[in-house]
Amino acid sequence: MRRTLQHPARIVPFAFVCAIAVGTVVLMLPVSRAGDGHAPLITALFTATSAICTAGLATVDTATYWSGFGHAMLAVLTQLGGYGIMTMATLLGMLVSRRLGLRSRLMAQVETSPGIALGEVRGVLMRAAVIMFATEFVTMLIVTVRLWTAYDEPFGAALWEGAFTSIQAFNNAGFALRGDGMLSFVADWWICVPLTLAVIVGGLGVPVLVEVTRELRRPVHWSTHTRLTVWGSLILLAVGFATVLGFEWSNPGTLGPLGVTEKILASFVQGTIPRSGGYNTVDFSAMDTDTLAVTTGLMFIGGGSASTAGGIKVTTFFLLAYVIWSEARGEPDVVVGRRRIAESTQRQATSVALLGVAVVAGGTLILLGLTSGVPFDRVLFEAMSAFSTSGLSTGLTATLNEAGQIVLAVLMFVGRVGTIAVASALALKTRRRLYRYPEERPIVG
Amino acid sequence: MRRTLQHPARIVPFAFVCAIAVGTVVLMLPVSRAGDGHAPLITALFTATSAICTAGLATVDTATYWSGFGHAMLAVLTQLGGYGIMTMATLLGMLVSRRLGLRSRLMAQVETSPGIALGEVRGVLMRAAVIMFATEFVTMLIVTVRLWTAYDEPFGAALWEGAFTSIQAFNNAGFALRGDGMLSFVADWWICVPLTLAVIVGGLGVPVLVEVTRELRRPVHWSTHTRLTVWGSLILLAVGFATVLGFEWSNPGTLGPLGVTEKILASFVQGTIPRSGGYNTVDFSAMDTDTLAVTTGLMFIGGGSASTAGGIKVTTFFLLAYVIWSEARGEPDVVVGRRRIAESTQRQATSVALLGVAVVAGGTLILLGLTSGVPFDRVLFEAMSAFSTSGLSTGLTATLNEAGQIVLAVLMFVGRVGTIAVASALALKTRRRLYRYPEERPIVG
Ligand SMILES: [K+]
Ligand SMILES: [K+]
Repeated sequence: MRRTLQHPARIVPFAFVCAIAVGTVVLMLPVSRAGDGHAPLITALFTATSAICTAGLATVDTATYWSGFGHAMLAVLTQLGGYGIMTMATLLGMLVSRRLGLRSRLMAQVETSPGIALGEVRGVLMRAAVIMFATEFVTMLIVTVRLWTAYDEPFGAALWEGAFTSIQAFNNAGFALRGDGMLSFVADWWICVPLTLAVIVGGLGVPVLVEVTRELRRPVHWSTHTRLTVWGSLILLAVGFATVLGFEWSNPGTLGPLGVTEKILASFVQGTIPRSGGYNTVDFSAMDTDTLAVTTGLMFIGGGSASTAGGIKVTTFFLLAYVIWSEARGEPDVVVGRRRIAESTQRQATSVALLGVAVVAGGTLILLGLTSGVPFDRVLFEAMSAFSTSGLSTGLTATLNEAGQIVLAVLMFVGRVGTIAVASALALKTRRRLYRYPEERPIVG
Repeated sequence: MRRTLQHPARIVPFAFVCAIAVGTVVLMLPVSRAGDGHAPLITALFTATSAICTAGLATVDTATYWSGFGHAMLAVLTQLGGYGIMTMATLLGMLVSRRLGLRSRLMAQVETSPGIALGEVRGVLMRAAVIMFATEFVTMLIVTVRLWTAYDEPFGAALWEGAFTSIQAFNNAGFALRGDGMLSFVADWWICVPLTLAVIVGGLGVPVLVEVTRELRRPVHWSTHTRLTVWGSLILLAVGFATVLGFEWSNPGTLGPLGVTEKILASFVQGTIPRSGGYNTVDFSAMDTDTLAVTTGLMFIGGGSASTAGGIKVTTFFLLAYVIWSEARGEPDVVVGRRRIAESTQRQATSVALLGVAVVAGGTLILLGLTSGVPFDRVLFEAMSAFSTSGLSTGLTATLNEAGQIVLAVLMFVGRVGTIAVASALALKTRRRLYRYPEERPIVG
């Protein structure tokens, strides 16, 4: 226990295990369930994991299975999970920068020290809380007013749904209070746009949000991390948008019946969501295989570091793209906008991405063994959705047996804390170089 | 043209384009085809590409579509393609070592110089030829005698089939003179074992074969490249064997009807082949999804560098595994058996692997768009088979339209020359470091 806490990178998995345990117990209380009795262990464990990891995958119908109290608990767990990952990942990132003796751009006004001062921790906790509540509050206001005025919901019900949905959106989770998710809002700009913007903001990450708000008018001052995340996110959003619009335009099960402006709105929503949002306004089980394939790739990349989004992260993906680009140009260094990327950072990115591939491949193989007759791409999609904590589903999750649910829960947990733990643990425990072996260059390719 | 030849790494793609053009013309001669008229351009182009790239994928029934002359031309093209890639990749690998100022283990007795002397080129060409013809001759003898004595084939026919099949095996291609491929030999040890061994030998690569035969009894003297290739290949063979045996044991369409020893033999053959062999003694279209998934992964890894096998190569894969392992242990260097792996080699491996993923993903997406109703995993399997020049097929290739055939042909070409061109071009044209930008470490994961 003490040893666990001595290693900062181990705190994240440890905290998440504790939170999941508490969440499971709470969801197993009879008061959490709408029907008689209490939720079975596996259902409560899966749902708590999904909420804490801000995935939003569900094995039961969220709307009808859980009571009002259960829904409130889901919102609390999602909020805790999202806030926890944002703040812990930010602090770990700062610790890594400090240990490596680099100026932290995030907290530029504070003097650099080998550890993190209590005041700085408080600063991160405060900033993350302000960002989170401000985004959620604005989103909630718009959604609530819309539900109240356009859908004739009573004010209380509209407020509750607005709050719940905003929490789900900012935290990039995807639990829905309606049985059909968000399908009925496919053409509603007042619902779709604020929620999708909340997903994007939540998915940028604390370091980026702090820097962008501080130096909004001077992008030239942004750190490499912020520039990679912002421009990379825009590129990925454009790819997602174009993919959905292009492949689904005339698909009768998805965009086909919609008008042109609604097609554009739905593509904006569904092109954003793979970056880890999780709610859907169109039916993913009816989507074209091409769309599912690109979506699977986008889910793998995910959102920004130290954000509520999952995946290997935007920076990891684009750093690797730069590594390949530099290699193709024969550059000795990997340079991103006049900044050289540390060799150790390149190695971290390679490790995070390849371990991600290995985890998803392993999970897919196990799930294939546990199901029968389910096409490979559906199984891969579901495994990727869990690993990247996107929470999108083509319907497979609800049909899995208990072993399959446990596999998905493990994927959500590993996806949520794994990339952060891997990236920071490694950076923090780098051993000293006492001697070096002679160099060798095996033939590659 | 002159500029092309000034860059050594460009010679490989250039030579392969020329060979494919000549092969296409030869296969379009009416004498090459068994029926009336000549083969259409796309069929000839596809088949020539498949032969030169030693893939063995076929859009027509090789046995009945081509004449005896056509079969002989296929054997010649396969032989040329296999010999060409082995020798050119070996020479490029030597050139890379020289340019980087390192002792070449391959030609240890020759003095190191910045270029490659003509005598050395002759040495590589001779060694590769000796290895190739010796392996093919022994394989041919055994297979011929077996076909002659146990299958009552006339000696001439047995000799021709033995020669053709041995050439296909050593060159890791997979064209078959029988309509059912090798299905009828599933239980024949005298056919399966020599051919599979020829596939393994051909897939190790010239540098490894030269070093292993020279220092057979002193593995401790082997270079890192040879050790990675030999041990890595054994691990991959074991994985392939266990996968086929485990998942197909009771599959009525594949191993189910066989006895235990035949199951083991068939698993040995089919566990080896994904490393780029291409012929099959069991029906891949009947295989379990799990087996196909693992096979797809094994195809991607492929065989040894400067061998007749395809894929990203065994060394690339295991180097990346070592990169992750070192990262996980917090080691500042990536060390493989007391040798430090150069940072540039690590970057090459990352680039080759990730570009491979990108090419296969792109090819799969395009093929998905060109087909309809074909499950994702079948399309991925076929794209991977082409990229890795494995030549295995679940039957999709034969049903593709012309656009789809061209996509597969491009995948075969890129897979065959791409990894080598990428790895060596980059190593050869590394720019000088005139100035360095300040270092930065974006947050990863
Ligand atoms: K999610
Ligand atoms: K092959």
